[in-house]
Amino acid sequence: MTPPVVSFIARPNHGKTTVIEKVIPALISRGYKIGTIKHHVHHFEMDKPGKDTWRHKQAGAHTVALSSPTSLGIIKDVTGDSSIEDLASHYFSDMDLVLTEGYKTGPMPKIEVFRKEISPSPLDNRDDTWAAFVTDTLLDSDLPQFSGQDITGLASFLIDAFISSSARQKTRLRVDGKVVPLNTFAESFLRQAVLGMVSSLKGCEAPQKLTLTIDNEYHAGQKKDETHP
Amino acid sequence: MTPPVVSFIARPNHGKTTVIEKVIPALISRGYKIGTIKHHVHHFEMDKPGKDTWRHKQAGAHTVALSSPTSLGIIKDVTGDSSIEDLASHYFSDMDLVLTEGYKTGPMPKIEVFRKEISPSPLDNRDDTWAAFVTDTLLDSDLPQFSGQDITGLASFLIDAFISSSARQKTRLRVDGKVVPLNTFAESFLRQAVLGMVSSLKGCEAPQKLTLTIDNEYHAGQKKDETHP
Repeated sequence: MTPPVVSFIARPNHGKTTVIEKVIPALISRGYKIGTIKHHVHHFEMDKPGKDTWRHKQAGAHTVALSSPTSLGIIKDVTGDSSIEDLASHYFSDMDLVLTEGYKTGPMPKIEVFRKEISPSPLDNRDDTWAAFVTDTLLDSDLPQFSGQDITGLASFLIDAFISSSARQKTRLRVDGKVVPLNTFAESFLRQAVLGMVSSLKGCEAPQKLTLTIDNEYHAGQKKDETHP
Repeated sequence: MTPPVVSFIARPNHGKTTVIEKVIPALISRGYKIGTIKHHVHHFEMDKPGKDTWRHKQAGAHTVALSSPTSLGIIKDVTGDSSIEDLASHYFSDMDLVLTEGYKTGPMPKIEVFRKEISPSPLDNRDDTWAAFVTDTLLDSDLPQFSGQDITGLASFLIDAFISSSARQKTRLRVDGKVVPLNTFAESFLRQAVLGMVSSLKGCEAPQKLTLTIDNEYHAGQKKDETHP
């Protein structure tokens, strides 16, 4: 399921990464699993030259994984920026909160980091997705403001505003790459019908979490082959 | 959907990685998307010290992603080795073939790399998952044998034996973390019922690929709350 996402934004060199690396342990110490997504404008190399996975990637592999009992690393070629929604739902479904860095636009709530010794004023494009400031001076705004030292206050705000209140969509349908919104009736009908069918399968009498994927192209192709041998 | 997986195995220093890095471009030049999975026994660090994602991970983030228009990198904490089946289905679903390195056991087909100047004989535990050898000497075996120079032959073998013949499971059901095997009737019934329901939703008249996830714990919890307010 998709966790809530909050974006840390700032003009350059205002200390976004420092705030994020301070607030992560404060959240983890209160029992939450935290993920982060950093946006990078250019091509990057994450791996270490000479390692086997690096050699696989250099040889042209599209996706490489390095798997150990404690860590899993994945590097994938993509064509175009991945959406936060896709990243959060596919790679962060087991997290309680995802903090992003470098995503100034988009619908997710934003926390702006501001330091008056670096810039005369906060970002100009403030809209109703702004949720709070981390600032070294009191700003003219109704939004919550935290000093860079008040990491406990910032962590509490993130928990109250985003983790506790997270109205997570518990039945999710994706068709041909797109998430399909389900109204209450469609959600309930689909969920209960599928759970009913699945619960008649051996060992699935009381399914809790379920994922079903169907590739109908394959069957469409087969049918055609049967009709025109 | 899960791509076919082939494991390259060998005693140490027989040149597995070299064979893999040669065969990848030979497969890619024939139009296939290739993934690799390397098994690592110990903890590893994939990222570069000082990078923002490295700082997020050091601060304790469980999952970090670095996203650009050309690449996506993910590093996750895990508890215990990930199964090849889970890795292939979750992270490699868009690949045509996945080559693994360092997985000597398990049900996937295996290609052993052997060099007589390094060891007197191939691995002892050969079983019916062995599919071929890459070897510098003719071995006493009925299996196909390729020299380390015959990368074209090896690539053709991989395509014929695993990509073309890949009988991929096109309807996949996972309940509470486990893949549930579906017989022909259950597969067809579930697929056609769900496609029928979904095709009545606006914009989903002819679904091709579909993923449905249900978290029934949430609804079970809600129901309880309603009954005992």
